[in-house]
Formats: sequence, C-alpha cells, structure tokens
Amino acid sequence: MRGNVIVGQSGGPTAVINSSLAGVYKTAKERGANKVYGMLHGIQGLLEEKYINLSEHIHNELDIELLKRTPSSYLGSCRYKLPEINQNENIYKQIFIILQKLEIEYFFYIGGNDSMDTVKKLADYAQKINSSIRFMGVPKTIDNDLAVTDHTPGFGSAAKYIGSITKEVIRDGLVYGQKSVTIIEIMGRNAGWLTGAAALSKCEDCEGPDMIYLPERIFDIEAFVKKVEEKQKTKESVVVAVSEGIKLADGRYVCELNDTVHEIDAFGHKALTGTSRYLADVLTERIGCKTRAIEFNSLQRCASHIVSRVDITEAWQVGGAAVKAAFEGETGQMVILKRISNDPYQCTTELYDLHQIANIEKTVPQEWITATGDYVTPEFLSYVRPLIQAELTPIMVDGLPRHLYYSNPW
Amino acid sequence: MRGNVIVGQSGGPTAVINSSLAGVYKTAKERGANKVYGMLHGIQGLLEEKYINLSEHIHNELDIELLKRTPSSYLGSCRYKLPEINQNENIYKQIFIILQKLEIEYFFYIGGNDSMDTVKKLADYAQKINSSIRFMGVPKTIDNDLAVTDHTPGFGSAAKYIGSITKEVIRDGLVYGQKSVTIIEIMGRNAGWLTGAAALSKCEDCEGPDMIYLPERIFDIEAFVKKVEEKQKTKESVVVAVSEGIKLADGRYVCELNDTVHEIDAFGHKALTGTSRYLADVLTERIGCKTRAIEFNSLQRCASHIVSRVDITEAWQVGGAAVKAAFEGETGQMVILKRISNDPYQCTTELYDLHQIANIEKTVPQEWITATGDYVTPEFLSYVRPLIQAELTPIMVDGLPRHLYYSNPW
Repeated sequence: MRGNVIVGQSGGPTAVINSSLAGVYKTAKERGANKVYGMLHGIQGLLEEKYINLSEHIHNELDIELLKRTPSSYLGSCRYKLPEINQNENIYKQIFIILQKLEIEYFFYIGGNDSMDTVKKLADYAQKINSSIRFMGVPKTIDNDLAVTDHTPGFGSAAKYIGSITKEVIRDGLVYGQKSVTIIEIMGRNAGWLTGAAALSKCEDCEGPDMIYLPERIFDIEAFVKKVEEKQKTKESVVVAVSEGIKLADGRYVCELNDTVHEIDAFGHKALTGTSRYLADVLTERIGCKTRAIEFNSLQRCASHIVSRVDITEAWQVGGAAVKAAFEGETGQMVILKRISNDPYQCTTELYDLHQIANIEKTVPQEWITATGDYVTPEFLSYVRPLIQAELTPIMVDGLPRHLYYSNPW
Repeated sequence: MRGNVIVGQSGGPTAVINSSLAGVYKTAKERGANKVYGMLHGIQGLLEEKYINLSEHIHNELDIELLKRTPSSYLGSCRYKLPEINQNENIYKQIFIILQKLEIEYFFYIGGNDSMDTVKKLADYAQKINSSIRFMGVPKTIDNDLAVTDHTPGFGSAAKYIGSITKEVIRDGLVYGQKSVTIIEIMGRNAGWLTGAAALSKCEDCEGPDMIYLPERIFDIEAFVKKVEEKQKTKESVVVAVSEGIKLADGRYVCELNDTVHEIDAFGHKALTGTSRYLADVLTERIGCKTRAIEFNSLQRCASHIVSRVDITEAWQVGGAAVKAAFEGETGQMVILKRISNDPYQCTTELYDLHQIANIEKTVPQEWITATGDYVTPEFLSYVRPLIQAELTPIMVDGLPRHLYYSNPW
C-alpha cells in the first residue's frame, strides 16, 4: 500500500477538468494509493484545511463516468497566487504542516499557467526542506496557452463547442433576408486559440465566419468597419468572430472603450467583456445596419453536453500519467502532450520541468494568422481539427445531462 | 397525382422548425404531391417570386435526416404583416396570381402567432374569391405562446437546452468560494414559458436557480435585491433566471432602464436585451458582490446540437398532419397538439380554426407561478418535463454537427 494522495483544481474550469480528476483518482487507487483527498478551492482551501476524502463521494464506476462528464471544477477552484518563498516562508510552512498531518506523499494540481506557478513553488520548497512529498502539475485550460505541451486538455472541447455553435449562429443569421452583422465574442485574453477555432465551422455545409480577429494582432477599428462594408457588397449576413482580448494600437483593450466596470483578479487580470457589444454599436452608428452581439460567455468552459472524445480522453490520460510518474519518483514536473502525428492523429504524454512552463504564455504563431490579420490559416486548422474529433455522450436522465452531485459544505 | 404544394417558414426560427418542413415535404411526396415548392423568406419572398423546388435540394433519405437536424429556418424567414384584405386587396391579388402561376393547390405556413395571422387572412381571401387553394398553419415557436394547442413545437427543445445549460452555469458558479450572483437572461417577451424552464435544472444533482422571474408578474427591483441578500445568508453562489420581458409596475421593461438602442420590428415589437446586465449592475452597486450577466441569446432558438426527441418528432408530425388534412380537403386550420395524458405522456394532433388562434398570446397561468412570484410551481414542471424527453443525436462529421447545405441565391 502506498501513502496518501491529495489533488486540487485551480484557475478557470473546463468542460473536461473533472476527467483529469477522475484519471488521477482512478489511477492512484488502482496503483495502491491509500487515501485520495481532494482539496476544496485549490491551495487556498487547503490553507483553511478544507478537503474531502474522494472515496466518500465516488462510490462506483458509474460515479467515475458521471464525474468525467461533470462540468466545472468538482472540487471548486481558486485564483490564489503563492508568494515567493523568500517573501513569506510561513505560508509554505503552514501548507506542509497540513500535508504532513494528512500524511500526504503525492500532490497533484490540475490547472493552467498560474496554477503551474503554484506547483513549481511547492516543489521548490519541498526540495529546500528535503521533503519527500512529490508535486506534479496536470495541465488544463480552455485557452491552450500553456508552454511546451502540444495543446492543453479542455481546449479541444471548448473548440468543438465554439465550432458547433458558430455553425448554428451563422445559420441563424441567414434567416431574415436583410443586411445584418453578427459579432461573436470568444474567450482568450492574450491567446487567440479559441477565437481561431470559430474557423472550424467553415466546412462543406457552412461558409464559416467572414472575419476572425485574434489578440495576437493589433485591432484597427477603421479597417474592421471597411472590411464589413466590403463583405456586405456580396452577402447579407456578415458574421465576425472577435477575441475578448483584442487591443488597439495604443494598448487599450477594445472593451475598455465601453464604460463598463472592470474587475481585477488576484493575478492582476482585468475582466474583459463587452467587446462585441461595443463593435456592434460602432457598426450601427457607422453603417446603420442591424447588428447582434453574442457573447459565448462562460458556457465555453462548462458546456459538458458537447465534449470532444479526444479531449476528454486526453484529460483523463494526463491525470493518470501524473500519478504514474509521481509514484515512480518524479516531482516538479508537468505532464505534457506530445503530438506524434497529425494524420492519423497520435499523441502521447511526457514530463517536463515546471520551471520551463509556469508563467509562460503560448500564443498563436504569427504565421498561422493571415497576412490581412483577419483569419487563421489552414495550418492552424490542421492543428486544431484532430482535437475536436468524436464525442462522449452525456448520461441523460429525465431529459437532462446528469452530473456527479456534490454539495460543498463550506 | 395531386397538384403542387408550397411551404414557407415565418417568424423566429427554432431548433426543430426544419423537422416540420421535412414532415411537410415527405408527407406531401408520399401522398402524391407533384411539385413541392419552398418560398424563400416566407410570404415576403413569395411576393418577390422567390421560391425553390425542394426536390432539387432534398435528394435522398439522408438529406431528410440532415434537414430535420438543421437549425434555423432552411427556407429563410420574414416578419411581414399582411394588411387587412379591405385595406389593400392588391397584395392578395398579387399573391394569388403567383400561386396560380405555380399551379399551387396546397399552401403550408410554419410559424407562430404573427404567421398564423397571415395564413388566416390568405384563407379568408381564398374563400372570398372562391379559390380552391387550401391554406394550413403549422405551429412553431420556442415561446410556446400559441393559443389552443397544448404546446408548440420548438418549445421542448429550447426548454431542454435551457435546462441543460442552466445546470452547467449553476455548476460553473460554484467554482470560486466567493459570494457571487449570476443573472441568466432568457427569451420570452410576454410569456414566461422558457424562463420557467430554467427550473427543470432543479433535480437530484442540482439545486436549480434560486429565483425565477417571469413577465407574467410585475417585477419589483427592491424585492429582488432584498431576496438576493436573503439568499446570500445561506449560500455563496446565487443564480437568478429572468425573462428578457420583465416589466416594472409603471409598464416599462427593465431593459429600458439601460440606455441601449431599441429596434422595433414590423409587428411593433421592441428588441429586448440588457435586462441581466442592468440587474447585475444594480447588484454590484447595491450589494457590492461579484456579478455575472449571461444572455442565453439566439442559441435558444438554434441549438440543434441538443434537441428533444419528443419535440423534433412532434414538429415532424404537425407538418405531416397539416398535409394529410389539406389533402383531405381542410383549409383555414392550424394543426394543434392535444395532450391525452401526462404520465405516460401521450399526445395527438387535431385541427383548429385559425380565427380562434391567430394573434392570441398564451401566457403562463398565474396559478403556475408561486405566490411570491419568484418561481414556478410543480404543476408547471409536470407540464414541461415530458416535452424535453430523449434526444435525437446530431449527425457528426469531422467533429461537428452536419446540417443540410443550402446557399440562398438571393
């Protein structure tokens, strides 16, 4: 029998983040872990000694299947930034006292950029104090902006959702025989992976969006209006996909041109919203045509009713691979996905030093954006398309997708 | 061999409006119709002689299956109000000249309230001039506000979509361990059927929304803020579903308190949007907590990737029943759905005089809304739940739902 395990989730949820949790749990149990704890609301909750014994909530194989299909972070999440070790060692001492009390030998943290920073610091501290606890990062983020890994679990399902509903919204835009412009607003602060995924909708039965604006390029409102006018010469319904994070040449976010309230989170990120509304209003004023602003909003990260089979399987695999590696002695590593081939799509897991991953953002390569800056290239689509393949059917009960129930006691 | 048939779609689309179109087409063909034309953009397009021969676009049984699963109105739609016959008889003469030119014997119109007004007037005019062309209405609307029929095709799928994503949004709201309020904005100008459907999410694995505000009751902002504060005493994440059409005691829409532009359509309806944003801003100011405004937007009417099997089947059936009745000599009627029993759910079609249906709005009965006016009763749910049962799997191609392609030449 091995020692105890603890696993947490951090940062924004994805539609498949619980598949990674299920992968960690099942693999740990199968490989002889004693107790598998789940920290509630990540490291922040752990500091308040909020955790559960996962075996009290996962009773059988059906529960595992339900957990995989449950949207949002089952254990709750946090956006908590650990201080540097030399700035406040007390927090680290506190965490390790709690971990020792629970007799933890393996620590898994499922998260994105900011969360990998947390695992890295904990692994560094463990080394500093000669602790034998092993710390492993499990990648997740819809934004696909983690360095080194070919892609990130969570991205494929978000891309599939965006591709699917973009097709539906484009159809919906065709319904009235009148000039109209639909602006679709897609998540992605600095990385345009998700916005680019709107181009997946361009296929045999759909023309796809007319323009796609990624945050990797400076956004020019004048050029945008001109391009819309140009498109309107040949078609009635124009559909434009924009990232919530597009910025003007002077560095301001387009959504900042609104007079909306902007929250700032623990990592200093502004809440971005209202880009599509602002641009729709500009078009109404300048062109005078009918406009619609559609925010794809938080459903991009919680639409578990339409996930990619490839993605949810890989989410499970990175969880399992992290457990396997930790049990074999690894620490301070993140599991990465390595694409072996595109066609047929083949992908395996490897390990990578967290120091070379944390806090580094991977954006869309400039060469995968067209010269005019308003679409993605075929190379971008060849990269994304394998990640949205196939489905994992929701378990439907009484007409609705069933999730694994858990009532957070705090 | 029978004569020619023409079919049109009008008003807002639904996720299953093309299942009715497929039902009309297939039944007409099977029962010996000669040509089946589709008018493009409803009666407005017909006046401009815009139509297609559907057999040139539906080639085989697979196309029928694709058409059923295609969102938005395949033939395009319109919001065109026919004048009274005595106000402008010329338009009627014009329409009948076109119908005679195409040798039309049967006319089917798939639509909601306003569209049934169109069919009624055309049937009246046919009677006036002793034309033998038969006019039949095929019900559709996500809003479920058509009179006489037990419910309306399109509503069940929209309700299933709303129930499903409300579950996902509620889960997503639980993720951070902090006080937050999520306001979900749901379609429905005067009828709260769709907003009430958010209550479907309350089941074994989900608490459902905390409050639900329908347009059938006057909305009191003070009572709303007080209720949110009260809920926050026992839970961190509060989720509220509101209809886009909720109004204050003085008759103003809540969304009119925003300074947004309001379009007005041909039927005099204002475009309603911004209710959730406004209420979220009120809460930020008054309570100071984190708020999110989520508009379920036009996906409510085009999310064909998650439809109700009951609904899409009934949508087909009302189309087929209209053809059968017209071929048997009926005119000036709409097909209605008559519920025989709730448990087990059984439902049949009947015919009803269009004069008693057109322009009458069916709202949620007051006794199906709680005394406090902020939730629906179990009776409401017993009525809705059978309509969201079972699924019709999308036909997935290369990772995305496939639709029947049609490029509108105009």
